[in-house]
Parts: sequence; C-alpha cells; structure tokens
Amino acid sequence: MGSDSDLPIMSDTAKILDEFQVPYELTIASAHRSPDRLIEYAKSAKNRGLKIIIAAAGGAAHLAGVTAALTTIPVIGVPIKSKSLDGLDSLLSIVQMPPGIPVATVSINGATNAGLLAIEILATSDKLLSKKLDNYKKKLRDTIQQKANTLEKKGYKQYLEDTKK
Amino acid sequence: MGSDSDLPIMSDTAKILDEFQVPYELTIASAHRSPDRLIEYAKSAKNRGLKIIIAAAGGAAHLAGVTAALTTIPVIGVPIKSKSLDGLDSLLSIVQMPPGIPVATVSINGATNAGLLAIEILATSDKLLSKKLDNYKKKLRDTIQQKANTLEKKGYKQYLEDTKK
Amino acid sequence: MGSDSDLPIMSDTAKILDEFQVPYELTIASAHRSPDRLIEYAKSAKNRGLKIIIAAAGGAAHLAGVTAALTTIPVIGVPIKSKSLDGLDSLLSIVQMPPGIPVATVSINGATNAGLLAIEILATSDKLLSKKLDNYKKKLRDTIQQKANTLEKKGYKQYLEDTKK
Amino acid sequence: MGSDSDLPIMSDTAKILDEFQVPYELTIASAHRSPDRLIEYAKSAKNRGLKIIIAAAGGAAHLAGVTAALTTIPVIGVPIKSKSLDGLDSLLSIVQMPPGIPVATVSINGATNAGLLAIEILATSDKLLSKKLDNYKKKLRDTIQQKANTLEKKGYKQYLEDTKK
Amino acid sequence: MGSDSDLPIMSDTAKILDEFQVPYELTIASAHRSPDRLIEYAKSAKNRGLKIIIAAAGGAAHLAGVTAALTTIPVIGVPIKSKSLDGLDSLLSIVQMPPGIPVATVSINGATNAGLLAIEILATSDKLLSKKLDNYKKKLRDTIQQKANTLEKKGYKQYLEDTKK
Amino acid sequence: MGSDSDLPIMSDTAKILDEFQVPYELTIASAHRSPDRLIEYAKSAKNRGLKIIIAAAGGAAHLAGVTAALTTIPVIGVPIKSKSLDGLDSLLSIVQMPPGIPVATVSINGATNAGLLAIEILATSDKLLSKKLDNYKKKLRDTIQQKANTLEKKGYKQYLEDTKK
Amino acid sequence: MGSDSDLPIMSDTAKILDEFQVPYELTIASAHRSPDRLIEYAKSAKNRGLKIIIAAAGGAAHLAGVTAALTTIPVIGVPIKSKSLDGLDSLLSIVQMPPGIPVATVSINGATNAGLLAIEILATSDKLLSKKLDNYKKKLRDTIQQKANTLEKKGYKQYLEDTKK
Amino acid sequence: MGSDSDLPIMSDTAKILDEFQVPYELTIASAHRSPDRLIEYAKSAKNRGLKIIIAAAGGAAHLAGVTAALTTIPVIGVPIKSKSLDGLDSLLSIVQMPPGIPVATVSINGATNAGLLAIEILATSDKLLSKKLDNYKKKLRDTIQQKANTLEKKGYKQYLEDTKK
Repeated sequence: MGSDSDLPIMSDTAKILDEFQVPYELTIASAHRSPDRLIEYAKSAKNRGLKIIIAAAGGAAHLAGVTAALTTIPVIGVPIKSKSLDGLDSLLSIVQMPPGIPVATVSINGATNAGLLAIEILATSDKLLSKKLDNYKKKLRDTIQQKANTLEKKGYKQYLEDTKK
Repeated sequence: MGSDSDLPIMSDTAKILDEFQVPYELTIASAHRSPDRLIEYAKSAKNRGLKIIIAAAGGAAHLAGVTAALTTIPVIGVPIKSKSLDGLDSLLSIVQMPPGIPVATVSINGATNAGLLAIEILATSDKLLSKKLDNYKKKLRDTIQQKANTLEKKGYKQYLEDTKK
Repeated sequence: MGSDSDLPIMSDTAKILDEFQVPYELTIASAHRSPDRLIEYAKSAKNRGLKIIIAAAGGAAHLAGVTAALTTIPVIGVPIKSKSLDGLDSLLSIVQMPPGIPVATVSINGATNAGLLAIEILATSDKLLSKKLDNYKKKLRDTIQQKANTLEKKGYKQYLEDTKK
Repeated sequence: MGSDSDLPIMSDTAKILDEFQVPYELTIASAHRSPDRLIEYAKSAKNRGLKIIIAAAGGAAHLAGVTAALTTIPVIGVPIKSKSLDGLDSLLSIVQMPPGIPVATVSINGATNAGLLAIEILATSDKLLSKKLDNYKKKLRDTIQQKANTLEKKGYKQYLEDTKK
Repeated sequence: MGSDSDLPIMSDTAKILDEFQVPYELTIASAHRSPDRLIEYAKSAKNRGLKIIIAAAGGAAHLAGVTAALTTIPVIGVPIKSKSLDGLDSLLSIVQMPPGIPVATVSINGATNAGLLAIEILATSDKLLSKKLDNYKKKLRDTIQQKANTLEKKGYKQYLEDTKK
Repeated sequence: MGSDSDLPIMSDTAKILDEFQVPYELTIASAHRSPDRLIEYAKSAKNRGLKIIIAAAGGAAHLAGVTAALTTIPVIGVPIKSKSLDGLDSLLSIVQMPPGIPVATVSINGATNAGLLAIEILATSDKLLSKKLDNYKKKLRDTIQQKANTLEKKGYKQYLEDTKK
Repeated sequence: MGSDSDLPIMSDTAKILDEFQVPYELTIASAHRSPDRLIEYAKSAKNRGLKIIIAAAGGAAHLAGVTAALTTIPVIGVPIKSKSLDGLDSLLSIVQMPPGIPVATVSINGATNAGLLAIEILATSDKLLSKKLDNYKKKLRDTIQQKANTLEKKGYKQYLEDTKK
Repeated sequence: MGSDSDLPIMSDTAKILDEFQVPYELTIASAHRSPDRLIEYAKSAKNRGLKIIIAAAGGAAHLAGVTAALTTIPVIGVPIKSKSLDGLDSLLSIVQMPPGIPVATVSINGATNAGLLAIEILATSDKLLSKKLDNYKKKLRDTIQQKANTLEKKGYKQYLEDTKK
C-alpha cells in the first residue's frame, strides 16, 4: 500500500489470502514519500522469492507502475477511490501503462479481486490452489442460488424487510 | 477476440508471444453474437490445458468478464478503443468487475502488455521465461538509453528531422 | 437482478408491475457469479412463455447483454448506481451493445421506467393494458397540475414549508 | 430523425427493417425546429396504428423524450454521435429520463439495434417475426464461427492481409 | 420548474427577483409528465406579456429546450444537480442545443444567477433596473472587501473559528 | 473573441446578426494575453451603449466570466471546442460561474445561437426584431417540413444519394 | 482565495508556510465579485516584493488565470473541490491555460502542496530553505517507515483497530 | 521526456528557453522503461546544479511524480495528449499528487507554458529574466492588439480569407 489510509480497503486482500492459506507480507511503501524503500522493495522482490506484488494507491497512483518498472514478476494494481474524482484518477493512473510494462488492474477498491487474481496466477502452477478456486466459485454460485430461492419463496417485500434487520 | 475487427490491434499480442516463443491459440468468440461458442471455450479451457485467457473487446465489452465467470484460470482483459467514447466504455466494462470474479485489465488497446502480462504469469513457474523477461526489460532500458544518447548528441532539431524521415 | 443488493431499487419495478396487474417473476442470477443459472434462465425464457426480461446490474454490468445474447425476446437493462463511478460504468456497460444484440436501456436506477417500458411493450398487443397506460399518463399530468395549483395558490414559501413537514 | 444529417446513420434502421420485411415510415421532425409537427406526429401515432416510434437525435437530444411524453407506445431512442462531446451528451439527454416516461435507449449510433429492438418488440405478439429473429441470431453466430475457422486456418498474418484488401 | 423537487433550489431565483422587485410567476410544468401544459404555457407566454422564461430541470432535462422551441422570448436554463451523475447529464441536456434554438444556460443549481441574468436582460431596456444591478455588484465587491479586511485583521485561525460558530 | 483562431467559428455569429440587421462590433481581447484591453473594453461597454457582449474562448476559457465581472450588461459565453478535451474544459470554465455573476452559456461552438440569443434579448424591447424572430422560427420549421416531404417522396436511398452530391 | 469558503482548505497552505517560517499574506479577492481588487492586487504584487502568488478557487475558477495574466511572478493554482462536479470543473478551468500564460496547477484541494511548491520555488535561490525541504522529505520517508514497521509488527487487524480509536 | 515520441510537442519548451537564453539539457528517461536512469537523474539533479526539472509524459504518466519524489527542486509536469483518452489520463496522473510531493502541472501539451513557468521561477531571483518576462508579456499584448486592429479594419470576411492563405 502507498498509505496506511488504504488499509481498511486492502485488509480484504489479506482476508481472501488468509482464506486460501496463501502466505503474504503486507506493508507500506510510497512511490512518492518513500521512493527508496519502494525501489529496494521492488528490486529485491524476485530474489526474495516473492511471486506477485499487489500495489494499491489512490489519486496520481504511481505505486503499481513504478513497482512494475522495477521487477518482472506480475504486479496487480488496485485503484483506491479518491476524495475528489471518485477513483477515476486512480484507475487511469494505474491502468494506462505504456507498452512494455503491464500492470494487471482490478476495479476501483477491488481488494478482494486483487487477492483472487493473485491466487489464480499462483494456481496456474499449483493444483491444490486450482482446486480451491473451483470450490470458491461453487460457493459463489450456491450463495446466489440460495438467495434466489429465498427471494422466490418469501417474495420481495418480506425479503427486503428481513435484510433491513 | 470478440470480433475480427480487433485483430489489427490484437496481432501485437501474437507478436510478443511469438517473440517469447510462448505457444497460444488465437480465435474469435463473441459474448453477444456467439455465446455458446464462448461458453464452451471458457468452460473447457482449463481441462484443455490452457493456462491463461486473453480477452479483447470494445464498447459494452463483456467478453473478459463472462469468460472469467466460466473458468478459474487468469483472464486478462484488453479494452479496445471504441468509435464513440474513446474506449472509456470498453475500459469500464472490463475493469469494474464485482468481488469474486477478477479480470486483469490492461490499458486501452494494450495488446502488447496483455501478452507480456501473460508471460509474467507463466514465468512465476518457468525460470527460462523469467530470464527472458529480465532480458526484455534490459532491452527496453537500452533502447531508451540509446535514444537519449542520440538526442543529446544530435540536439533536438536534428533528431526531429531524422525521425520525420 | 445480478445481486440481492439491487432489490431496494428494483422493488420499484415490481411495484409498477403490480399496479398494472402484470404478472412477473423476480429472481437473482449473476452473469459472473452464477453464469450457468443465467444461461439456463435466458435460454429457456422464450419457451417458458416469458415475453420480456428486465435485467438490472451495476459496475461492469454484463447481465443484460449476456441475457440478450441468449434470447430473442426484448431485454430491458437497468444500470444500477455504483459505489465509485456514480453509475456511469453501469450505464456504459449496458447501453453500448454491438450491432445485432440490442438492450433497451433505461436511466441509472430507472426501475420504475423499466417496468413501464415492459408494460408499453406488452401493450402493443394488449388493448386493456394500452388503456391503462393512457390513464397512468393522465394521472402523471394531473399530479403536476395539482402541484402547480397548490404552488400558485400558496406561494413558494408556504409550499416549501409544507413539503418539509 | 431530428435532422436529415442523421440519415447516413439511421438508414441502417431502414435496412434491418427491410430485411425483416417490417413496414415503417421514415421522416424528419425536430423537437426544437418543428415542435408542432413533432407534437402532432407523436400524439396521433397510436391512433394511426403505429406500434413503435424510433427517435434519433444528437447533442441536447430531446426528440425521444418529448415523443415519449406524448404517446404511450414504446419509444426507442438512438443517441447520434455529436461533433464536440463524442455522443456522451446525446446519450445522457436520451437515457436519463425521469420516472413515468421511459425511453428504450440503444448505443450511440446504434441504428441497427434500434431496428432489431423494434422487431423484438413486435415479435412478442408475432410468431413469424419471432422465428425470423431466431434465424437472424443463428446467422450472427455462424458468421463468427466462419471467421474463427478462417482465422485459425490461415493464421493471423494472412487474415490481416486478406482483410486489408 | 419540471418538478416540485426543484423548488428548494429554485426558490433562490424567486428571492433574487423579489430583491430586485421584478414581478414573476412561479409554476410547475414538465416536458415529460405534463407536455400539453408546457406547450400551452410556452406558446402563450409572449402574448401574455412574459419577457423571459426560466426553466429548471434535472437528468434528461428537456424543459428548457422544448420551451425555447415554442417561443421566441429568451429562455434561461438551470441544470438541476441530479442523483446519479452530479448534474453533468442535466447540464449537457440543456446547453448542447442545435443551431436555431438557443438556451441561455447557467451553472448547475445556478438559481440565483438565472434570476440575475433575467434581470440583466430586462435591464437592457430599463434604466432603474440597470442602476440596481450596478448597486448589487458594488455590494458583492464590498462584501468581499469586508471579509478580506476581517481575515487580514483577525488572522486565519481566528477567522475559521468564528465562522464555525 | 479571445483569439483570432476562434474566428472561423465566430463568423457565424456575425452572419446571423447581419441577417437580422443588428449592428455589432467584432474584436479580439484576451483575458490572459491582453487583460488591460479586456478590462477597459468590458468596463466601458455599458457607457458606450453596448447592450450585450458575446464572449468566445476555449480551454481555460475565462473571457466570458471576467467580462461579466466587469459589467452588468448580459454576457453570452461561447465555449470553443478545444484541441485536447473536446470543449468540455471550455464549457465548464464558462458555465460554472459563482452566484452573483451569471454568464449566459450556449453550446460548444454555438456561434449562431449566441447571435440568436442576443437578438432574443434585444427583442424583449424591440417589436420589429421580435417579429423577425417569429419569421426566422417559421423558416426553421418550413425547412424541416420540406426536407421531410422530400425524404418521404424520394425514399431514403435516393435522398442519401442526392445529398452526397 | 476567491472566497472565504475556501479557507478551511487553504489554511493548510498557511500551516505549511508557517512550518517553514516563510512569510506570506492571506487574503480574499474574487475574479468575479471584486475584479478591481484582484487587478490591483495582481498588478502591484511584483513591485510590492511578492515572489509568488497562490490562487485558490472552485467551479469556473478564473482567479489563478486572471492573476497570471496580470503579473509575471509565478502563479500557483489550487482547484477547490466544487459542489456539483467534484472539482473537475475547477481543475480544468485552472490548468488548461493557453500558451503564454502558465499557471502551476496542483491537485484538487491541494493546499499543502501549493505551499510546498512555493517553498521549492523560493528554495531555488535560498539554501536554508532548500535544506529544510530535504529535512521535510526525510520526515515523510521516516513516517512511512515507522508506519510500515508498526504494521508489520502488529499485523493488520491490530493496526486497523488501533487507528480506529 | 518519457519517450522520444513526446519530442514534437516538447521542442516548444526548448524553443521558449532558447528565446529567453536559459540554458537547459533535454533528454529521455522513462519512469517505466528506464527507472534506474530516472532515479539517478532525479537524485543527482540538485547537486549537479539543476534548478528545475520539466517532466513530460502521457497515459499513466508517472515521470513527473516519481521525479518529484526523488528531489526537492521544483518539478513541472506536462501531460502529453494520449491516443485514447485525449490526455485526461495524462493530466490526472500528473496533477493529482498526494500531500508532500507537489508537481507544478501545466495544460495538456502545454510545452511552451512549461518553459515559461520555469523562466518565471528562475526570474524570482534573476532581475534580467524578470525584465524579459515583462517584455514577453508586452509582446503577447501587442500581438493581440495588432490582430484586433487588423480585424476591425478589414472586417471578418477579409480577415478569414487572408488567414486561410
């Protein structure tokens, strides 16, 4: 993360990685306020055995792009919703990278998806993880099915009332 | 690709994969015009041994998202520049995925980066590929350095004239 | 609906259909989280006798487009206001469909209008419904007229005070 | 149409209606430059036996909304790409209708889809038309399939060269 | 106004007209929900002796444009801030009029300025009003001057504290 | 005008004023490059007998607002389409004025409408001009009617061919 | 500042200047409501010995541009977040200046950065200030480092809980 | 510059610096493709005696921000107009910097203004340069005055014809 103010959002990345029992480190390094720390972190990542870096930042969000410039492991970028332009600035700053230096961008505040994308990437060479992803997808499907069943049984008025509680 | 009109852009993906000698298949399947073909393609991809899917589409670009819904291998989305809204519609349609179904989005018309991201993903478990990426990055760096040298030697007026030719 | 979080908005569709005594079914099927359910739902809709499908979703909103790809009955799309980009992403994801697969898009959070549009479509071959629509329009007109009368009689200061209560 | 300058786009609506042998009338009436003509046209439409109105306009595009205000038959709106804001103004002017008066909006310059949506609406009570739509959809699918076959057989370099010709 | 929900904003127009003792009528007429009322209102305005019409509406805001189509007296348009797109839709729907039918557009929620613009227009042939405008402008200037004096005297910390009270 | 590069657009204002035989002066004064000239021009305008000022500028378009700050006669603003942001910057810079200082904004590149709006303002106290406006409006209406007749008679294919010539 | 309503934001500029012990004056002058005051202020600034002007305004924000037109000392523009368009109007009004009259624009509500930029400018000829900037940057870096240490030691759950307090 | 493709735009910066006889170096260093070169360049700039850095880049434009992170001399950012989003992405990526690290942003493709701003900054401690700026401003003013004279003398029709040649 570029700032500890991103933590309430980015803790969702930690949660999904915990759920899949994928080890990770979670830290703060700003492209703007602590560039040397970021440079060292990004440059040493591959040798330290990191497989993927997830970078979250808002506004003129340079964290993901600068990280991607300094390593060749996949970098996932999470645009954090900004105070004045609703995250459009964060999104464009992260996704519009020039040819040669890709950043795998997820949705604005897409912390859970950043974690899942990392897991999908690891799963390309990890059958157990790949299996877990299939199960995760089944659970998504079952949750929708259950909600649909409940809604069809109860009717929308009752459903709305129950979810308000 | 969602349409063969995307091919002039997406051939850059093929080129970079060729350069890295990464095998791939290149085909057309539309989320809207040939949904069954897409459904079958996406569902069978993992079992057929595909490691990654790159999906390119423009406008209300649903190809990447629908593909991601039907598989658990990483899906990379390429927003194609659209005729009326400059690709903003394509970008938002691809990147703003809900929690649970990530799409790794690259820049508008970012065909080369889509290929490179796929290579980075494969390289997380392929040392040779990882090495090639390091070399590729060095070449990027050297090209910039050479251009800088040329510019500093020639001066900007001569440089401009020479590049016009 | 793509999610039960859309229900507080989409219950307005149910209300207007109830008001016109048009039968409907209301359920949840996500293009991303339960694609098979959606595919089956959309493919069987015409044979099951459904006349129209109303699809509501937010963000990278693919529900309406994917449904339209799988059926030839009219599909009405409702862009749900999203958390970060005010519904612009939902709108563009739904309305910018490629030639061949139309989605009849209404305004952001336009749940009432989605229902009314469905009724207008049914009314093209149902005189009773057509009559009811004429009456509905008269009521809209009368409500405006009454408010105008009240405002002109009371003056704006009193009117503002009374509506605050 | 609000202007004859929209005809190069809107002739695609005529073409698709011709293809499906659906009778129509094609004329010009501007919400701004010939309001009386529009008012009379819209008010008399239902009694004259029109089933649907397709309204195309650009910029501050009021044609569709004003037409919808004056009739209860379905109104389909086509935002025409504008000179200065790429059609975003046209789109928002047409789609963001208030509750009570829906306009079925298609994509910017979506003339073909406007025609197809009209056909889908008519097909809700016309089995022959409904059948034709199924066939149309099959043709879309087959075209994609053929292109995919050609691309896979020829390879992308040959394909690109052949489509350039 | 197109709706009584615009009154909290548009009462500022009434206030400024009251302040300048300019007579006016304030009513509700919707381009969409009561088109006949609007048509009659706009068509008869000039003969009834109205000099200017101020039209306020939000979303797909057609009120000002349709009014301008039906009269040749100046029409001032006030884009009302909308629920989902921050008033950008209202603004573009009002300002982007085609050649031949101008609408004098003020800022989003610019109710005071709509009134002032009307007064400026009337003042082109009313010396007393013209004088009053000069005085109004002096008061604006003096208010700024006073605030500047206060700020310079108190210092910003004290000023902030005092304005919080 | 803020620049002579706006003249190809703004000559349409001159043309419509010529057509209505409304006298005017046409000059260049930039809020940024010749502020003193602008200040003098705006401050002296009322005393020199000018009734209205039309100000056209692009990009960070301050001409209209600064003029309006320095006079109390109506100021009409014309946002000129800009090179990089399609005129959105010009539009917002002109229309979003603070309370107290209105600018009557017309559409991007809306030079004809700026002239017509000025004529409408003058016509509030000039019956002959008011009459001419009614005639102008009739001509707009008749032109639409004639085009509609031609289109209905010829059919759209012939019409398209004829307009291409 | 263009208005005292900008003070809660702009007091951050005062704070950072205080922190660096850089003398300044803080006042209100509106390009629209008190143009003469602004003109005098800007024109006399250089002779009065001011080195830099920081101008903050929102909406159709002309303050910075007009100031820059009237002086040749550097003008720093701060776009204030506006009520309806999130500050996009303020930003474009300030940054999109024509060739010849630059405004050094900082981020929306970027009051601290406006102060820092002024200090950087002064530091180009003031070694003490230049030194202080180096120290300031070190503190930024150290704060990030400390937060990173705390986060790594405590874990994200504890960190989140502690920052909530 | 981040790329030699920016040179046709950025040569205008060189030209204005040449005109003012301000020495400069012009080179290429990419935040993404040659990060080490950029890091070294930015870190050593102050010690090498550089007073200001002008950084131009497009798309996800990180060059200015990263440079600003690594030095405390003023950094001026020039957003280069991008291929797909008209430079809005470049602008937001450069201007929306977080507190602590300002970038003095000029308009999209604002190369001349970047140079002028640098000159203004240098002129805060260089009387000769300050004088030259006053003269430059006078020339801007005189050019406008001359064009105004020509236009008023010739009339707009002749003026248009002459500028076409």
